[in-house]
Amino acid sequence: MRPTRLARNVVFNPGKASSTLRERVRREAFLQKLAEPQDLAPLFKDDDYIGWSGFTGVGYPKSVPTAIADHVEANNLQGQKRFNLFVGASVGTEVEDRWAKLNMIARRYPHQVGKEIAKGINEGRIEFADKHLSMFPQDLTYGYYSLKKKHGDPKKPLNWAVVEATAITEDGHIVPGASVGATPEILESAEKIIIEVNTHLPNLEGLHDISASSMPPHRQPYLISHPEDRIGKTSIPIDPDRVVAIVESHQPDNTGPNAPESEDSRAIAGHLIEFLSSEVEAGRLPKTLLPLQSGIGNVANSIIGGLAAGPFDKVMVWTEVLQDTFLQFFDSGKLDFATATSIKFSPEGFDHFYSHWAEYKDRLMLRSQQVANAPEIIRRLGVIAMNTPIEVDIYAHANSTCTSGSKMLNGLGGSGDFLRNAKLSIMHTPSSRPTKTDPTGISCIVPFASHVDQTEHDLDVVVTEQGLADVRGLSPRERAPIIIKNCAHPDYRDLLMDYYERSLHECLKRGAGHEPHMLRNAFKFHTHFLEHGTMKVPGWD
Amino acid sequence: MRPTRLARNVVFNPGKASSTLRERVRREAFLQKLAEPQDLAPLFKDDDYIGWSGFTGVGYPKSVPTAIADHVEANNLQGQKRFNLFVGASVGTEVEDRWAKLNMIARRYPHQVGKEIAKGINEGRIEFADKHLSMFPQDLTYGYYSLKKKHGDPKKPLNWAVVEATAITEDGHIVPGASVGATPEILESAEKIIIEVNTHLPNLEGLHDISASSMPPHRQPYLISHPEDRIGKTSIPIDPDRVVAIVESHQPDNTGPNAPESEDSRAIAGHLIEFLSSEVEAGRLPKTLLPLQSGIGNVANSIIGGLAAGPFDKVMVWTEVLQDTFLQFFDSGKLDFATATSIKFSPEGFDHFYSHWAEYKDRLMLRSQQVANAPEIIRRLGVIAMNTPIEVDIYAHANSTCTSGSKMLNGLGGSGDFLRNAKLSIMHTPSSRPTKTDPTGISCIVPFASHVDQTEHDLDVVVTEQGLADVRGLSPRERAPIIIKNCAHPDYRDLLMDYYERSLHECLKRGAGHEPHMLRNAFKFHTHFLEHGTMKVPGWD
Repeated sequence: MRPTRLARNVVFNPGKASSTLRERVRREAFLQKLAEPQDLAPLFKDDDYIGWSGFTGVGYPKSVPTAIADHVEANNLQGQKRFNLFVGASVGTEVEDRWAKLNMIARRYPHQVGKEIAKGINEGRIEFADKHLSMFPQDLTYGYYSLKKKHGDPKKPLNWAVVEATAITEDGHIVPGASVGATPEILESAEKIIIEVNTHLPNLEGLHDISASSMPPHRQPYLISHPEDRIGKTSIPIDPDRVVAIVESHQPDNTGPNAPESEDSRAIAGHLIEFLSSEVEAGRLPKTLLPLQSGIGNVANSIIGGLAAGPFDKVMVWTEVLQDTFLQFFDSGKLDFATATSIKFSPEGFDHFYSHWAEYKDRLMLRSQQVANAPEIIRRLGVIAMNTPIEVDIYAHANSTCTSGSKMLNGLGGSGDFLRNAKLSIMHTPSSRPTKTDPTGISCIVPFASHVDQTEHDLDVVVTEQGLADVRGLSPRERAPIIIKNCAHPDYRDLLMDYYERSLHECLKRGAGHEPHMLRNAFKFHTHFLEHGTMKVPGWD
Repeated sequence: MRPTRLARNVVFNPGKASSTLRERVRREAFLQKLAEPQDLAPLFKDDDYIGWSGFTGVGYPKSVPTAIADHVEANNLQGQKRFNLFVGASVGTEVEDRWAKLNMIARRYPHQVGKEIAKGINEGRIEFADKHLSMFPQDLTYGYYSLKKKHGDPKKPLNWAVVEATAITEDGHIVPGASVGATPEILESAEKIIIEVNTHLPNLEGLHDISASSMPPHRQPYLISHPEDRIGKTSIPIDPDRVVAIVESHQPDNTGPNAPESEDSRAIAGHLIEFLSSEVEAGRLPKTLLPLQSGIGNVANSIIGGLAAGPFDKVMVWTEVLQDTFLQFFDSGKLDFATATSIKFSPEGFDHFYSHWAEYKDRLMLRSQQVANAPEIIRRLGVIAMNTPIEVDIYAHANSTCTSGSKMLNGLGGSGDFLRNAKLSIMHTPSSRPTKTDPTGISCIVPFASHVDQTEHDLDVVVTEQGLADVRGLSPRERAPIIIKNCAHPDYRDLLMDYYERSLHECLKRGAGHEPHMLRNAFKFHTHFLEHGTMKVPGWD
């Protein structure tokens, strides 16, 4: 068959397909569209709206984004080709950070991880907004992110979707890599689709549960009552006419090593497992617990590690991301089933996982983030949600996103989806963090959270290495002393209690003592830190 | 039949039943338990956990709570009988405020309306916590509010349920008044049940849709895809053995008059209807809109009034509370169906409603607040949610509960349930409010919300009489200038813009400019107001 053309300079060359690619791409017509990434790169125009597959640095396209960056760099187009980039969550830093460094990102929603991209956001070059990860895909399909889109089809929010696949079915449907994220909605929203078929990864067909989502007023319930319920298909349906090219790629996901446990993270995990045990004893949780959600990081690793050695059997997991410790949890025989939207194992974790595929494949399922993070399902299942904030205040409001109220770290992620709807909403954090000059210069328990992402109406339990505060059913005046006493670092305990008591005294005097504050001092920890590198204030004004 | 006894001093006297009561109570055994409220009053002990029916001052028990208050007053027991009181939302102030004034409330969840009760909360005598109204009933059944309950059955969260009914079925099931609220879960949670059958109200059988709720891991989807879908029964099932007494009552709901419209509320409604029209035109909303949720108050009244005269036909309503203007909306022929958890009409509104019952009864349904406010259904239906905050900040965080960060007004209500999950999340407020000395002394647009109940991740649109800010898809740096320019009162516009620009300058300089703030000035509007009675600060430090 003769190669056909997409545009000037793009030559389709099906003859270059590897034997693995021929096996993986079961729709012959797509093989006819096999292109080289460097030929596709110039097609992307300034101000284009682009969606990628990927979630937490897994399952993102590698070749085409790299080729676009190469093209910009080689032609000195930095600042002249700036794109609006939409991905379920973060992608590999080698791709996204490079785009940021080359000033190729005008806008980026709804999450990111990487030094350069965070720098671009905080220095004002990149417009960024974080959004509940369950809502991002629907808001994309609603057209909420493309109100300013100037060229292309006005009915489609995105000019391009570039997605990774590990296989393509006879119908042209896409079998993703080890994440689903917002890929179904990104594909649905795009005028033109480019598929990167990654032949380095195994074909993951069967791992995914892809359900159709409609727009209101036609939306239907998600008929999931147990984590293992399957409601969809094993691949993502697409309109094959919108596929303009496929590419073969070989790079692995750039996940990096696991966050190592620490004495603090083990102490936090210990408090939590003790608390869960007491809830079982009191009859408020079944012996098998309820489905667990756990965030990313070393505390999450300690918790899951602790559960693998812990007293609970036949545990289920309903979460956003699976980390290496879940392998250990599976191997302990205590974890029955786990479902998420992404598997973020370390390179060694992935090697182990893929080489023991037969043992794991029936105990795991990946869903779209709209389903994995759906309030509907989280509330129905009664999930136990555990996440790490930047800081928590004395009344149990939490900051998940902006240090000192202004500097974006990574974004909200699914923290709000889970903490608002879980049966038990738990925030775990070290009680303090070091600064350059003071090993406990930052208190993670503050008078007033400098950015509120989770409200006092959402949290049930706060836990640090110091201890655990169970604030269920407590009024703000009852919460503050318990959080301070049980959770704050000893270096800050008296300062915080003094803040609370003075606030209480002042506010009661003027008949305004429901949630006592001295607003003039509310951010003094933070302003003192900005000026002096520590939150240890001399006292209250 | 001989009268039987519940306790010393309680004489059952079925002979006293009115003919209406005999008609309404179709379970003969319950009529045998007809008691006088004043005989029941002494049974309530200090520190008892009590649940009442009622929501927004409708459908609450009137006789027994009044008798308990009479008993406390007559025997000088103020401060010696203090109760833990749980109701779906607020009840009539003549009951709740009287209890507060007599120092009979130790604890009150999760909402309240009334001068005396707010005073008790803010002066430190009443422990209060507000909670998403969709979550309150489930947290009650989970036992989260009774962790400190000392006497009675440890497996039941409440010692007592006192609920109003307009009829009782042959099975002993309860037909509520014009609200459902948390009554099903309160009945399920109580050791002992007292039913007040209100024979002044008509028998409202058929108005309600009562669905069973299970605990995780046994919870099932709510199979509602349209506002008119019925998934339950017309009465609330109870365990008849726990009914210790019934009482006949005659008092109407104490709802008071409608909030009158104002020039500002009409201007806000005008901006909103224009916005909704443009969304229909852009194809982002169907011509019939999507189901509407609307809060309480004069702006809500103007909006619904505006819609009754507006361009949209066959509209549906999925909301928490229906006010008088919905009658007008029905009568305009433009409203097809409305469902809520409470009908809070004015006394005249109720008269009209009950005397035209046949015209309305098939176009209305009342559900429990766990269903009416369920994130699951709100998100599925794509509700258009409209609520009034105390203040909104320049990045679209909103305060729904505490003035100057500390003083509780009424509580969160369902604002978070709807605004987090709606397809369009709208906050409407006048741009300023008067103080004693300054007609625009309070700006409702502030640099930093002094209490955050709704986050920037939840709101799509902010609207004041000045104009409307559509912040969908915008970064914080894009949101602030639009909110200030379109929504702030002219008296504050320059001050706010100056705050934003200085914050931007300072934060960009230190590479922290994602959501620019000067934390030392963030609450200066509020601290200045506390000292000088106006938010008009001379400038920024």
